Amino acid sequence: MSKHYKTLETVFAKANITNQISAILSWDTSTMMPRGASESRGKQMAYLSEHTRSILFTEEVKECLTEACSRVETLDHWQQANLRNMQRIFDDYAAIPSDLQQRYIIACNCSEMIWREARSNNDFQLFLPALSEAIALTKEMAVCRSEYTGIKNHYEALVDTYDPGRKLHEIDTAFGALEGFLPQLIEKVRSKQDARIPLAGNFDVEKQKALGLEVMKVFNFNFDAGRLDTSTHPFCGGHALDTRITTRYNPNNLFGGLYGVIHETGHALYEQNRPQAWITQPVSTALGMSMHESQSLLAENQIGLSKAFINFLQPKITQLFALDPKIFSADHIHKHLLHVEPSFIRVEADEVTYPLHIIMRYKMEKQLLNGDLQPKDIPEVWNNEFTAQFGITPPNDTLGCLQDIHWAWGSFGYFPSYTLGAMTAAQIMHKARSVLPDMDRDIASGNMVNIYAWLRDNIHAQGSLFSSSDLLLQNAMGEKLNPEYFINYLRNRYDA
Amino acid sequence: MSKHYKTLETVFAKANITNQISAILSWDTSTMMPRGASESRGKQMAYLSEHTRSILFTEEVKECLTEACSRVETLDHWQQANLRNMQRIFDDYAAIPSDLQQRYIIACNCSEMIWREARSNNDFQLFLPALSEAIALTKEMAVCRSEYTGIKNHYEALVDTYDPGRKLHEIDTAFGALEGFLPQLIEKVRSKQDARIPLAGNFDVEKQKALGLEVMKVFNFNFDAGRLDTSTHPFCGGHALDTRITTRYNPNNLFGGLYGVIHETGHALYEQNRPQAWITQPVSTALGMSMHESQSLLAENQIGLSKAFINFLQPKITQLFALDPKIFSADHIHKHLLHVEPSFIRVEADEVTYPLHIIMRYKMEKQLLNGDLQPKDIPEVWNNEFTAQFGITPPNDTLGCLQDIHWAWGSFGYFPSYTLGAMTAAQIMHKARSVLPDMDRDIASGNMVNIYAWLRDNIHAQGSLFSSSDLLLQNAMGEKLNPEYFINYLRNRYDA
Repeated sequence: MSKHYKTLETVFAKANITNQISAILSWDTSTMMPRGASESRGKQMAYLSEHTRSILFTEEVKECLTEACSRVETLDHWQQANLRNMQRIFDDYAAIPSDLQQRYIIACNCSEMIWREARSNNDFQLFLPALSEAIALTKEMAVCRSEYTGIKNHYEALVDTYDPGRKLHEIDTAFGALEGFLPQLIEKVRSKQDARIPLAGNFDVEKQKALGLEVMKVFNFNFDAGRLDTSTHPFCGGHALDTRITTRYNPNNLFGGLYGVIHETGHALYEQNRPQAWITQPVSTALGMSMHESQSLLAENQIGLSKAFINFLQPKITQLFALDPKIFSADHIHKHLLHVEPSFIRVEADEVTYPLHIIMRYKMEKQLLNGDLQPKDIPEVWNNEFTAQFGITPPNDTLGCLQDIHWAWGSFGYFPSYTLGAMTAAQIMHKARSVLPDMDRDIASGNMVNIYAWLRDNIHAQGSLFSSSDLLLQNAMGEKLNPEYFINYLRNRYDA
Repeated sequence: MSKHYKTLETVFAKANITNQISAILSWDTSTMMPRGASESRGKQMAYLSEHTRSILFTEEVKECLTEACSRVETLDHWQQANLRNMQRIFDDYAAIPSDLQQRYIIACNCSEMIWREARSNNDFQLFLPALSEAIALTKEMAVCRSEYTGIKNHYEALVDTYDPGRKLHEIDTAFGALEGFLPQLIEKVRSKQDARIPLAGNFDVEKQKALGLEVMKVFNFNFDAGRLDTSTHPFCGGHALDTRITTRYNPNNLFGGLYGVIHETGHALYEQNRPQAWITQPVSTALGMSMHESQSLLAENQIGLSKAFINFLQPKITQLFALDPKIFSADHIHKHLLHVEPSFIRVEADEVTYPLHIIMRYKMEKQLLNGDLQPKDIPEVWNNEFTAQFGITPPNDTLGCLQDIHWAWGSFGYFPSYTLGAMTAAQIMHKARSVLPDMDRDIASGNMVNIYAWLRDNIHAQGSLFSSSDLLLQNAMGEKLNPEYFINYLRNRYDA
């Protein structure tokens, strides 16, 4: 091992500390911070971001990377992977000129604020100038990344930042398979299913919290290194040694808050199970957003929506909230949660229609990046595409193209991760079932030890040892991403 | 204004950001952080502390300070005061060699952990080696400070770090006056007062919280720039733009938690009212710990224990907790809270006996620093002195010399601030009453606007414009610290 590589480990361990600090402050911003402190918090975050840059983006790091890469054979395979991840982080800084990065951050902050107002006033025109600016800067960034990384397609260069190594032709193939399958499935399910059983009620928020904590315990969330709080939008924040998840509670709807907890617990377990021996190093981080989403969706949908888990959950719910077990039967809850119906809002969609929301956004993002779609035309295209896909037309932009924060944030290329994650989750679960034949019995008794030990060993504790999720899947499952597992899973669950 | 001074403002504004970050993380450690994250948090705090040092303790800052001081006449009086505060911070770094500072931090962290165990096991011998080490290092630090600052007495050099400009002979005079007055007052009060009315009950913690928040509103705490939480020991943390106070709740005792809130609110208002135009600069910070304690005690005791305030509070309490207003009458509450009785634990002492706890510690600290008292002899001396002063003997060291965290932390020279603060509060309140003749009527109606506007203008918004609390008092009150105000206040309240 060269002294250059050793120096890099020291430098990145330092940046790990500043990243932890940023992560805790960022959690605080969304959960605890009084509103009036947002200006000072903004300065703190900007300072830390600039400081981390000053640690990592230096001539010394550049030289050490070059030297270490030139003698990569002296490193073991974890060190080699670590070096590759270090190079990736350095390249992220190197690819984007500092002033462009600054303009981008300022424009996106501004755009997010305007988006909030535009969304609540259903006013796309108000949002259009800021959105156009965010898109223009995103394009500039994409060109820079494309030039630096050699990824020719500009949109693919953006996708790569969230899902390393992901190619558009892979997404096209996978999404194509879903497009060839989902519409018929949806039609078939809807023609067979009963009207949705309403399971509304009055669910004390403190009890909802207690239930969430209990379910986190069932999933073996480590409370000695994490916690649960409340925020406007559920998220998993903090860092591997202090993982903080949130949800939101609706006193009339029990399941939104609870499944928010389960979803974020899935993310959190990935963080808590990262390779401990490398915990200060880039190679210990999660592989990318599609793999991260696979873990949240595995918990939320694969496990959480299974009959076995609902059988386990149902007596707890009826007892805690003193509900009529005839109305809140396991069968009713299962049917309620698995009800399939086209709807306007992505984050409220069932798991069968959800991918179609993503595919639509994916296609629009590609067009926005290559210039085939102009920002001003987004509402019209959105509504046309939506109507064609779902058979219903958004009555306004708030329920249409203004619903998501991603574009306001300048996050283009992120959306595919959700559905790639859903597909990955199905594939992983299929493998896990073959290895752990008692899984459903375990789940029904609230025993997640075996499944999560297997996920830890095969996914979580692999960190970023592999350079793409396909390579990780290939190693753990013997096969790269294959949409057939997700298709079969949906067929079995909804059309058996 | 020289460009050197301008540079200093930029540098110290940067350090202000890192100090804000440390303050929020420190609050998080005591309120939110899961226990298992303490090691990573320790690294984050150490990193920030070292980073702040690297910002402030540089050759450039040294040169700028020299240059700016040489042309001090080009600065206005706020800038001059700012420069003096900058120099003070720089000198704090310069006085202590870096390796001594490191040894001190490590020893005190270690000592604090051992102290916790020793206190719960009533085992002074367990604590003795760590305490001896903490005292030895404190002495080394005191010698360094003494040499650097020119303050000859080593203990005085320590006191000066908490209470700038404070001289031991001033403390001796003030404490001497109290020693000549308090024992007789205590005897007199105790011979007249009835047995303490027990006001125990079952006080729902959520309601206690709600009451605390309501009282904070009454004191005009700015919730847009701060919040209330729970911790093992009440404190005021965060920073001027995001001030976070805590208390602890006892379900059987309403007043401990509530008066903890009032005390910390007093601290918080000092922070929230710091001079806004200088908020990033050292001159905006509070003047020192005796002035800070004066503000917490002014809220807690001067206002909080007044008949006017208890008249205001009583109907709120009886209504919220559905209490019998005959038992929880204003008169009973007042007598309950003003009951005077020697007791072992400082933090639970009434305001009449409290100063004697401090005076005893002050004398022992002086002796520890000049070598007249050896660490091994602390328990014996403590118990003898305590018995002589209070007429009761601690049955064990947990209720005696092991009760406070200060010495374990290596905080020698801090204790006097509590009683100097109590005296300062009485003096400030006396002046305020003369300027605001309707004060009691205001307090009785829960109107704190006038008193806090006056405190803001005369104390809080002065920041560290003056170099000592005596100079600030001289400016605001026309007189430096005078123990007679506190003595008269106690006489009027307890022996009228």
